[in-house]
Amino acid sequence: MRILVFAGSLRKESVNKKLATVIAGKLDVLGADVDFADFREFEMPLYDGDLEASDGLPAGTQELADRITAADAIVIVSPEYNHGVPGPLKNAIDWLSRIRPYPTIGKICFLASAAPSVVGGARGIIALRPALSFMGPWLSGDSFSLAQANQAFNDEGSIANEDLDKMLDGMLDRFVKVTGSAQTT
Amino acid sequence: MRILVFAGSLRKESVNKKLATVIAGKLDVLGADVDFADFREFEMPLYDGDLEASDGLPAGTQELADRITAADAIVIVSPEYNHGVPGPLKNAIDWLSRIRPYPTIGKICFLASAAPSVVGGARGIIALRPALSFMGPWLSGDSFSLAQANQAFNDEGSIANEDLDKMLDGMLDRFVKVTGSAQTT
Amino acid sequence: MRILVFAGSLRKESVNKKLATVIAGKLDVLGADVDFADFREFEMPLYDGDLEASDGLPAGTQELADRITAADAIVIVSPEYNHGVPGPLKNAIDWLSRIRPYPTIGKICFLASAAPSVVGGARGIIALRPALSFMGPWLSGDSFSLAQANQAFNDEGSIANEDLDKMLDGMLDRFVKVTGSAQTT
Amino acid sequence: MRILVFAGSLRKESVNKKLATVIAGKLDVLGADVDFADFREFEMPLYDGDLEASDGLPAGTQELADRITAADAIVIVSPEYNHGVPGPLKNAIDWLSRIRPYPTIGKICFLASAAPSVVGGARGIIALRPALSFMGPWLSGDSFSLAQANQAFNDEGSIANEDLDKMLDGMLDRFVKVTGSAQTT
Repeated sequence: MRILVFAGSLRKESVNKKLATVIAGKLDVLGADVDFADFREFEMPLYDGDLEASDGLPAGTQELADRITAADAIVIVSPEYNHGVPGPLKNAIDWLSRIRPYPTIGKICFLASAAPSVVGGARGIIALRPALSFMGPWLSGDSFSLAQANQAFNDEGSIANEDLDKMLDGMLDRFVKVTGSAQTT
Repeated sequence: MRILVFAGSLRKESVNKKLATVIAGKLDVLGADVDFADFREFEMPLYDGDLEASDGLPAGTQELADRITAADAIVIVSPEYNHGVPGPLKNAIDWLSRIRPYPTIGKICFLASAAPSVVGGARGIIALRPALSFMGPWLSGDSFSLAQANQAFNDEGSIANEDLDKMLDGMLDRFVKVTGSAQTT
Repeated sequence: MRILVFAGSLRKESVNKKLATVIAGKLDVLGADVDFADFREFEMPLYDGDLEASDGLPAGTQELADRITAADAIVIVSPEYNHGVPGPLKNAIDWLSRIRPYPTIGKICFLASAAPSVVGGARGIIALRPALSFMGPWLSGDSFSLAQANQAFNDEGSIANEDLDKMLDGMLDRFVKVTGSAQTT
Repeated sequence: MRILVFAGSLRKESVNKKLATVIAGKLDVLGADVDFADFREFEMPLYDGDLEASDGLPAGTQELADRITAADAIVIVSPEYNHGVPGPLKNAIDWLSRIRPYPTIGKICFLASAAPSVVGGARGIIALRPALSFMGPWLSGDSFSLAQANQAFNDEGSIANEDLDKMLDGMLDRFVKVTGSAQTT
């Protein structure tokens, strides 16, 4: 079982990357073959129909599509920007949606979010659902939202709060079980 | 495999009920044990915290919860009211959410919509995703939106347009396959 | 300048009602003629197209429409139920939308929310925007979200936190200024 | 009265640009001082917190902010990408939101959309509302959605359908009236 994990943020010290690292580690323990990607690996310009017509799909988009295609499931850990999907992540989805069939079809998908605020990025996940759903994955109803993320990790990079950590364990356990069993194609 | 199917509309001649009937028939052919419910069976008042405190859960809410609990999967065929979830359906979700654990947890869920307009209720489905996701089901990325629904059915009550009918067949086929295989609990 | 203020909750001790009371008081001080309504005054059944065909508009819907029509502006203080608009409030909007022209057209509208959680109902306001926008009001970009509302009021029923209270003052000041000046019809 | 008009699409032959041109022309007739911008004028990279820390605000973001600041009102004509805000437009909003105070505060804002499909981009406008509202403008409840936009313009570049054209006239008339009167600051 192969699972692609990435944070939808370009910043190197992003709390979303930290949370993605935690999730990747937990999935590895659960026996998954984890493909942990840095969002910077999928470099692509702003979507522009003229650019697509002249140059085709950017290499970074194709790379992201190939990594999704090779995976059974995807974890996206995304910040919330202005109550919505971060522009760079939405841009990647927009480019991906030019590929037929959508590489996301039939993939099992888990969404998470970290944010410095007390809200924890839940509104970004809400905005992400319709945009992603359009492209055919199976979205877990469970989603994990880490608030006050600047203080949420201990020195080892784990989630300091035990209850939250266990909650995440339970969610990922169910996610892996569904990924391993669901015949989506 | 038991699948609960209902339309989120109280009107007797609702096009959403017609579409729910079509879907129930197709699921039956695919071998599912279909529980086709009329939304009127789940009679409940407007949500009111005081009423809940004094009288507890309405019988109609409990009935809906029991039917969901008994099912492996749920199909909701919902109209779109004012770019959102119909009040009566949102009200049922709000009452359901007072039950712990949520009866919807781990259920496989497929959303469809019918509308007289050319848009087909897609915005209602978009608004339904976050409200439902909160309660833990696995939402199919696929969703079926039937536009101009007043002219969409033939005399036998089937979907007149063959391409649309086949598209729906494909979606339900994948839905049944996932319902039959996914270990969600 | 007449402003209708109500909370979209039926519960008597709702924190949203408390916040609506605070806002009504502040608007009164700002010189507005405040119509402070209890959402229970607008009693109406769940929307049902058959009921509408047989009995017409419920008296409570007509009452709400009349109060909106008589006002220049509206303040809705709404809880968030399951990441969305509360069923009862959405139901009222759905009934209202059967009136032509929409009574909400050209009204200046301010949204607020109170919630016991740390999030403060912001997601309910987000979900409310598209449903309301459809019916033609001018929505303030400002919205006020009161988190941890169970501890947010002092004994006099005012907002205990001075910074939050001042922020609300500023928002209402701008709201009243726009209501008094904007020629929306 | 100065009104900034632009389409949220980078493509040169975008139907959204055509609709923006129509709207700019109508606003000019209504007496507004129209600043018709090409979205390409606001060139900026994908939002990246590290880039912001090292290089500050991109010139294109500053240019967009200045043009917004100089205007009393804004018209955004935006395509819908995958049921959401186009990545490039969301990216511009995300960069803009790094400026304090938000340049959009108190601006009167009208949203429109054109799309080749029968739906007309309404879902993009729905997704745009919360992201924009966050930044303090007054959003018109009216919004104009032009479906089947490839056939919607006549040879002079006007909207071929007279009823739709009149509907847009009415909306812009109200928009200009509110822009000219509302004291938002």
